[in-house]
Amino acid sequence: MDTTKKTLIVFSNDLDRAMAAFIIANGAAAMGDEVTMFFTFWALNLLRKPEGVAVKKTFMEKMFGWMMPRGPDKVVLSKMNMGGMGTAMMKSAMKKHNVMSLQKLMDTAREQGIKLIACTMTMDVMGIKKEELIDGIELAGVGTYLGAADQANLNMFI
Amino acid sequence: MDTTKKTLIVFSNDLDRAMAAFIIANGAAAMGDEVTMFFTFWALNLLRKPEGVAVKKTFMEKMFGWMMPRGPDKVVLSKMNMGGMGTAMMKSAMKKHNVMSLQKLMDTAREQGIKLIACTMTMDVMGIKKEELIDGIELAGVGTYLGAADQANLNMFI
Amino acid sequence: MDTTKKTLIVFSNDLDRAMAAFIIANGAAAMGDEVTMFFTFWALNLLRKPEGVAVKKTFMEKMFGWMMPRGPDKVVLSKMNMGGMGTAMMKSAMKKHNVMSLQKLMDTAREQGIKLIACTMTMDVMGIKKEELIDGIELAGVGTYLGAADQANLNMFI
Repeated sequence: MDTTKKTLIVFSNDLDRAMAAFIIANGAAAMGDEVTMFFTFWALNLLRKPEGVAVKKTFMEKMFGWMMPRGPDKVVLSKMNMGGMGTAMMKSAMKKHNVMSLQKLMDTAREQGIKLIACTMTMDVMGIKKEELIDGIELAGVGTYLGAADQANLNMFI
Repeated sequence: MDTTKKTLIVFSNDLDRAMAAFIIANGAAAMGDEVTMFFTFWALNLLRKPEGVAVKKTFMEKMFGWMMPRGPDKVVLSKMNMGGMGTAMMKSAMKKHNVMSLQKLMDTAREQGIKLIACTMTMDVMGIKKEELIDGIELAGVGTYLGAADQANLNMFI
Repeated sequence: MDTTKKTLIVFSNDLDRAMAAFIIANGAAAMGDEVTMFFTFWALNLLRKPEGVAVKKTFMEKMFGWMMPRGPDKVVLSKMNMGGMGTAMMKSAMKKHNVMSLQKLMDTAREQGIKLIACTMTMDVMGIKKEELIDGIELAGVGTYLGAADQANLNMFI
């Protein structure tokens, strides 16, 4: 156990929850902690490249891929989205108060050396291929996550 | 504090969140850890027997019981359920990739000796009776949960 | 690391999730633990005074403020709200089983000396002013939260 290590399981791709995850992660990294973020289920969409990538997919995988957002600019609030208006209002308020966008938070996480891991099991199930993910993402399973969690003093599910 | 003990509070009965909870729990148990799962609020529905059970209930308890899903086969995704189509797609993709169904994950949890506790306070409020729960469930309150959490090194709220 | 300290990040203003957070917090405090609750994003609404407070706000801040619930009596269930009927049923069942209302749970938390912190960054973004919050709330950022978490043995995101 070590108070300089933290892990977060990021499950959601709601804009607000993803922001909370990266603010905690970046805050800990700025204080010198080693942070591991494990992206699973919907949160895998945060790691997708915004542009379409030509990969071989089954019909069902194509449908999943088409229905889910690609990257941090496409995700919306968990509440008060109101057809996009609430999300736009929130983004505007963030800009006004000099709060980093989710894209910037993710860039900062990578600059600070936060380890970003994509869950291979849910990638398989949702038909998301390695080529579709942004650079610098590790692929691993729950065993790898649990190994990291056993060395950390803060482990959250978001 | 002991890196061989884990606890999870399972609050949600979304299919995806319940799967995440059992995958973490089973992964830890497979690595030899002692895992306690505490089911509260909506997640109590995961522990309900699929068939109706004749128990005495008030009118309101009957209504609650009727509106909530009974067991792991009835729960749906937190997102993209689309009237059941998204959930069916996800289950089909899981089968194709040899990912255990939620029912199998729960069976495995019990085989591995994971302790499953139902929260008595929320059972009372939601009118869920002991007879309606599957076998092998302990009944306890938040004090019991906190006692387990104090001995564990990973405690998550899902 | 100290098994007598706990922290909770409260992100949601769903009635059910807020209740879970305060039940855990009050349970730990009753066992003698020092508990810190950090309210961010939607959960800030739990700390708002029920009455309107005259503060200077931009047009957008007024809109945010108008759309979000003020205080524990206004928040609703995450599921089965059904236009308020489900929430009313739940509150009635809670009363019948002598389960504390969210308002009572919050009063108890303050009586037990639980530290309640409002996240300054999300207060800014959502246009919530100090004057709108109930008494006894500290204002701080993620760094303060992480400092508390490093001394605790249970840290949850709700």
